[in-house]
Amino acid sequence: MERWTEPVARHDAVAVLDRLDGRAAHEVADALARMDAVDAGWVFRLLDKERALAVFEELHPLDQQELLAGLREDAVAALVEEMDPDDRARMLGEAPAGVATRVLAGLSPAERSMTAALLGYPEGSAGRAMSPETVAVPVGSTVTEALAVVRRKGAGAETVYTLPVTDAGRRVIGTVSLRDLVLARPGSAVADLVDTGAPRVPATGPAEDAARLMGEANLLALLVVDSEDRLLGLLTIDDAVEIVERADTEDTARQSGATPWSGHYMYVRVTRLARTRAVWLAVLLLAAVLTVNVLQVFEDALEQVTALALFIPLLVGTGGNAGAQAASAAVRAIAVGEVRLADLPAVVWRELRVGLLLGSLLGLLGLAVASLLVGPQVATVVAVTLVAICGWAATVGATMPLLARRVGIDPAVVSAPLVTTLVDATGLLIYFSVARLVLGV
Amino acid sequence: MERWTEPVARHDAVAVLDRLDGRAAHEVADALARMDAVDAGWVFRLLDKERALAVFEELHPLDQQELLAGLREDAVAALVEEMDPDDRARMLGEAPAGVATRVLAGLSPAERSMTAALLGYPEGSAGRAMSPETVAVPVGSTVTEALAVVRRKGAGAETVYTLPVTDAGRRVIGTVSLRDLVLARPGSAVADLVDTGAPRVPATGPAEDAARLMGEANLLALLVVDSEDRLLGLLTIDDAVEIVERADTEDTARQSGATPWSGHYMYVRVTRLARTRAVWLAVLLLAAVLTVNVLQVFEDALEQVTALALFIPLLVGTGGNAGAQAASAAVRAIAVGEVRLADLPAVVWRELRVGLLLGSLLGLLGLAVASLLVGPQVATVVAVTLVAICGWAATVGATMPLLARRVGIDPAVVSAPLVTTLVDATGLLIYFSVARLVLGV
Repeated sequence: MERWTEPVARHDAVAVLDRLDGRAAHEVADALARMDAVDAGWVFRLLDKERALAVFEELHPLDQQELLAGLREDAVAALVEEMDPDDRARMLGEAPAGVATRVLAGLSPAERSMTAALLGYPEGSAGRAMSPETVAVPVGSTVTEALAVVRRKGAGAETVYTLPVTDAGRRVIGTVSLRDLVLARPGSAVADLVDTGAPRVPATGPAEDAARLMGEANLLALLVVDSEDRLLGLLTIDDAVEIVERADTEDTARQSGATPWSGHYMYVRVTRLARTRAVWLAVLLLAAVLTVNVLQVFEDALEQVTALALFIPLLVGTGGNAGAQAASAAVRAIAVGEVRLADLPAVVWRELRVGLLLGSLLGLLGLAVASLLVGPQVATVVAVTLVAICGWAATVGATMPLLARRVGIDPAVVSAPLVTTLVDATGLLIYFSVARLVLGV
Repeated sequence: MERWTEPVARHDAVAVLDRLDGRAAHEVADALARMDAVDAGWVFRLLDKERALAVFEELHPLDQQELLAGLREDAVAALVEEMDPDDRARMLGEAPAGVATRVLAGLSPAERSMTAALLGYPEGSAGRAMSPETVAVPVGSTVTEALAVVRRKGAGAETVYTLPVTDAGRRVIGTVSLRDLVLARPGSAVADLVDTGAPRVPATGPAEDAARLMGEANLLALLVVDSEDRLLGLLTIDDAVEIVERADTEDTARQSGATPWSGHYMYVRVTRLARTRAVWLAVLLLAAVLTVNVLQVFEDALEQVTALALFIPLLVGTGGNAGAQAASAAVRAIAVGEVRLADLPAVVWRELRVGLLLGSLLGLLGLAVASLLVGPQVATVVAVTLVAICGWAATVGATMPLLARRVGIDPAVVSAPLVTTLVDATGLLIYFSVARLVLGV
């Protein structure tokens, strides 16, 4: 089905172009990302100028740099000059400083100053991701005048569907949609069509929040302003979609105890992939030493009743699973804005009940299973422990991401793996305490 | 900061309206979702007609139903009549059959037939989510004629920024953007502006794939066609964003071993929340019985060297973490299209190397820590086991989601928790096998 991306005989330009013909830019970009640098550079140079630009803008910044490295200086300058300022800023933001400076120096003064302005905003900010090339409509215009502005300046702008409406001091009044302009009577005043309630975000604010707001409020473009409410640019929905996707990918990585990396899963180096996971694995291993300590405390109980050891993985595993479920639900609910800090007590109360309900169910199941494998006494210990562990794990699992948020840590970081490891140690404490009570060991 | 959403004295209409004034529809909807049904119904009835519709469309289908239940029959009819057909279909699709039939019966014939058509497509399909109210431009038009069509029919359409271009048989030729129409010379032919390569999806295909395609190809609207390439509707980016968000939320739930549910985390019933998690927890508990069986096999080894028991949670925990990291990375890479089935051997080879690298690192760390706590012999067993477990866990973790995909199961379902549980049992096998070799027990 994806035959066209398979390697062709090198330097068979006709065959390659034939295959790429009719493919969308993002498909060609995906194919290039899967080739080695030499092949990718060679195929890329076969594309005509306009298509090359479209494909290039679809590539990941790291792939973009790899391609640029293989192009002649003048080809690089021509390509980068044509890029949208926000895409260019994203690429240069991830490039080594030397490369970025050299590329910037090759730009025309107008493009260079626009890009330098975007690069002046911190990484991950709305300012870095916005498009500065907007078509602003003066608030005093008629619809006819506004449409004339769109015709005059529209070609260079990233979007013309959401038009910022500004006063003489470039201060934002609101937005007007091209749809309203086209549907309105030509003589009407823009002031009557402007949506003054259109949300706006500061350029220094987080791009992820801005992008999620666009999804909630169904916006195609979002006003980005400075501290005095002056227009700086627009964040467009295509960039917002990418920002949210990237943020969700990062959350997924963090939730499994890995540092988010940027790049394509199949093309990131193995050592780099290992590095993204190593720190957390090591931290979790050290945290897990707690479980060894707890077991050492109960070593005599273990020696007396070896059967207790048999259920250790099952119990800590179940606690971990219950904790992970609660943690994942909480992290997602926080990410999409359903849960706020003030909800903490309500969340604790919800999850405690959920956990105890689940624990009761699993306790019965555990009692049945364990009775078949070992005596009724140890089975009772297992069942009681399951109830307690589930209630405890669900509560801890849901509250830890919220507490992390409160102290300014990304909730995704303290989710499943950390919760699991901590619940492991406390779960063992519960297990052996119950064992002491029931078996008197 | 969110003071305006706090409860006000009941029936103090002036105070409530004062607070809601200037709030965006999605903010009011969020506030309503957080009130009980009686308060929400009361506040909702205070909103003027246009605003009520905007707020209603932002509500979750379950909240919509709750609100409708509290409204008079004629108010329900008026409200539902004004909804966009795709939003209406989504609400009715989640409503009990009786309610849906009654609401449908109250609609005008035109709206009823549009909604019934959407409801004819399976849940989760592009057809269910598309908007049938499009402004199609005949391929023979001039730009002036096309703009006239937009002015005539644009008010009722969900979008006018991407216009389907069709032939006399309603067959899709491509799309033309309103931007191009506005920027073109009035006399130009639409045929010269049409993008014939605009992607199109079948109405019966999955909405999630369609939505992700829109993000990749930077589309504001995507053509939805029947099997003969005739225009059925458009999927718009605002709906696509919601579809992707919902799919990612479901993936997050599945990855933690919970059944995805629809609804707001804070307002879904505790018993329902428990039900979404119970099945998997029970399945995982039963799967974990394997770990008991493995330990029973090695019970004599455990009795001889109780110190071996001390490291069980640490080792299975580390294996679980390494497996979860790999599984999450794989699930996400599959979801965003970076990894395909054909990549399986490459993925195995990558993750095996990543796992062994990580294992070597953790092995050294484990050797140091374990040497302090127990003798050098058991410490050696722990270290060797860590290397083997990490290599094994990473490989299993990354391949299981891919294998699931191959047999048609959602990869997210077989990620972290299932991987962890299976790795637990095999990890213990590795541990005691190494112990036999090194300690001769």
